[in-house]
Amino acid sequence: MELHFLGTGSAFPSPKRSSSCTALRHDKGVWLFDCGEGSQIQLQKSTLKPGRIKKIFITHLHGDHLFGLPGLMCTIGQNGAAVLKPHIDLYGPIGLRNFICMSLTLSYSNLPYTFSVHEVMIPSYEEFHSTNHVDKYDPEFWNKLKNLSKIELPLHPNEIAATKIYTNQQNIFEICYDDDLTVLAGVLQHTVPCIGYVIQEDNIPGTLNVKLLKDIGITPGPVYGQIKSGKGVTLPCGKIVNPQDYIGEERKGRKLVILGDTYDSTGMLDIAMNADVLVQESTNENADQEKSIQHGHSTAGMAGEFASKIFAQKLILTHFSQRYRSLDYEIAEETVDVLVKQAKETFSHTVIAAEDLLVVPVPLAAR
Amino acid sequence: MELHFLGTGSAFPSPKRSSSCTALRHDKGVWLFDCGEGSQIQLQKSTLKPGRIKKIFITHLHGDHLFGLPGLMCTIGQNGAAVLKPHIDLYGPIGLRNFICMSLTLSYSNLPYTFSVHEVMIPSYEEFHSTNHVDKYDPEFWNKLKNLSKIELPLHPNEIAATKIYTNQQNIFEICYDDDLTVLAGVLQHTVPCIGYVIQEDNIPGTLNVKLLKDIGITPGPVYGQIKSGKGVTLPCGKIVNPQDYIGEERKGRKLVILGDTYDSTGMLDIAMNADVLVQESTNENADQEKSIQHGHSTAGMAGEFASKIFAQKLILTHFSQRYRSLDYEIAEETVDVLVKQAKETFSHTVIAAEDLLVVPVPLAAR
Repeated sequence: MELHFLGTGSAFPSPKRSSSCTALRHDKGVWLFDCGEGSQIQLQKSTLKPGRIKKIFITHLHGDHLFGLPGLMCTIGQNGAAVLKPHIDLYGPIGLRNFICMSLTLSYSNLPYTFSVHEVMIPSYEEFHSTNHVDKYDPEFWNKLKNLSKIELPLHPNEIAATKIYTNQQNIFEICYDDDLTVLAGVLQHTVPCIGYVIQEDNIPGTLNVKLLKDIGITPGPVYGQIKSGKGVTLPCGKIVNPQDYIGEERKGRKLVILGDTYDSTGMLDIAMNADVLVQESTNENADQEKSIQHGHSTAGMAGEFASKIFAQKLILTHFSQRYRSLDYEIAEETVDVLVKQAKETFSHTVIAAEDLLVVPVPLAAR
Repeated sequence: MELHFLGTGSAFPSPKRSSSCTALRHDKGVWLFDCGEGSQIQLQKSTLKPGRIKKIFITHLHGDHLFGLPGLMCTIGQNGAAVLKPHIDLYGPIGLRNFICMSLTLSYSNLPYTFSVHEVMIPSYEEFHSTNHVDKYDPEFWNKLKNLSKIELPLHPNEIAATKIYTNQQNIFEICYDDDLTVLAGVLQHTVPCIGYVIQEDNIPGTLNVKLLKDIGITPGPVYGQIKSGKGVTLPCGKIVNPQDYIGEERKGRKLVILGDTYDSTGMLDIAMNADVLVQESTNENADQEKSIQHGHSTAGMAGEFASKIFAQKLILTHFSQRYRSLDYEIAEETVDVLVKQAKETFSHTVIAAEDLLVVPVPLAAR
């Protein structure tokens, strides 16, 4: 498992930091989290293959997390490039489907694969427009937007209908289970409806201790499969083989938490607990906390605090204001180093500042 | 006047060539022609100021000419950057409005300026789906698309309604007149409805010959304005000043032709005549002409031919297949040099291959 940071800038893409896009590469494919403008260009610069993308998760519908999606979908499989699976699943807040369908339809896009949009029904959606605390959106503006976004578009020719995803009784969205990974989502507080994702890998069964089996005279064959599946086996000599004695310890699956933009992530506290990796936006430094919250964003200190609360093993900061330079810039005080230091004040484990095209491996925990 | 080539690649953006976007910088602002994904990033790399953009013209709705538009519109004027005029006019084929309104609405975009979308009613639009000659779009696919794209969305909160533009009796679209520039459009043959634009500058009045006026004793004052405006003036001594004797020759305004994707541009022959500059796509080389036409595109030879037919002074090739390297690449045979040479076989004046961020001045014709 690896995390590939394709875009790490906030608000708009720049030549230094592209818009939000984080890829999770695992054994069975590539999953994207957010897809800001330029993500398909970043993908070309990375070692990832567009044809391996199977799922795309969107945290919220702000343009810097969304506007790269139609272009990316058109380019996947273009010029006969191999597509891993001829179907792509998209997940994201209600409205995502209309955006995708309208964009792909009006651009006459005929895709070499099918797609489904699984819309997440954030409960506060209807009330969001009135409770929103950022004054630049006046109620009249919101009402006009709301009317426009309620249109239900018919299916795009390449689209397969999907059901909407509602919260369960614990206010959690059960997003999907695929490729041995369970995905949950929880609501984040931002200026617009927003969610964060939790990716929980299944535990990995222990491996068969072939040496021990050979020592007692059992040679490779169908019996190995029986033992591995946990069935007791009686040998011709009458000896009963207890599978547990020959199977190594089960290993704990990895847990990743990838948040959308937020000034308050307490809604995800329970499902994010004990993450191996937390990816959290850290748009601003602590001194700008008031302004940051007004715009719905976290500071480095807030990210560190949340990482501590959920007992994360590693915190990766991303979605930086374009004013922060990368670590190799000559004046350290103008780089994301400032943010890493502030996050470390509230979180005692590893803190990493993402850079465009940075790859962070996510290994299994040490035994 | 300068042409800034922000994106010169076809089909999809790459790290080497961004998607289609050509900017015309003139005394009174910046006009964009097409806006593929990544155009706002290219704009940041250029010397152009996003806040000076006043008009955006779209040739057709394929993603590589369109998908950068919502992001660009969101970024213009962000962070309080100065906006030249708090209104932007967009022009393009019918469907453009739904794309923009849906994208800006679902992304909760509140702009610091107003905008209008002037949709161009290409007459063949309704029949396009059946007469389209590229077999990858089957009739059923087209019908589904058509149903989806017919929805009329209400106004976005920042939008000011605009009337649709229909052809005049000569099958020409009179797009706009502003900043001393008249814009016309004509229909191009492509796989989807597509237009090309003609930009005709007003003739530039001759300047006042101040030296001559001083020689006959007329000193600077309101009388200069009278003479410049062509009015005869009687001096206190009784002498009648004939304005024509003191005003230099009127200079011919420049004419630019910027085409969209096309395999046949004869529909624009009349309005494109005597262009100072023709910007035409040249996706492929002559050897690929059959395939190129099937996909609705021009070869270098076809571009040269059209330039000759309209008696253009200069041909700028753009929208290259991503396989053509830039001129500085070590193997000349793999660069756009191939295309320049082929265009020169059918056009005897200057041929230039565009590159991302290339700036081509468009001077007034020599006297």
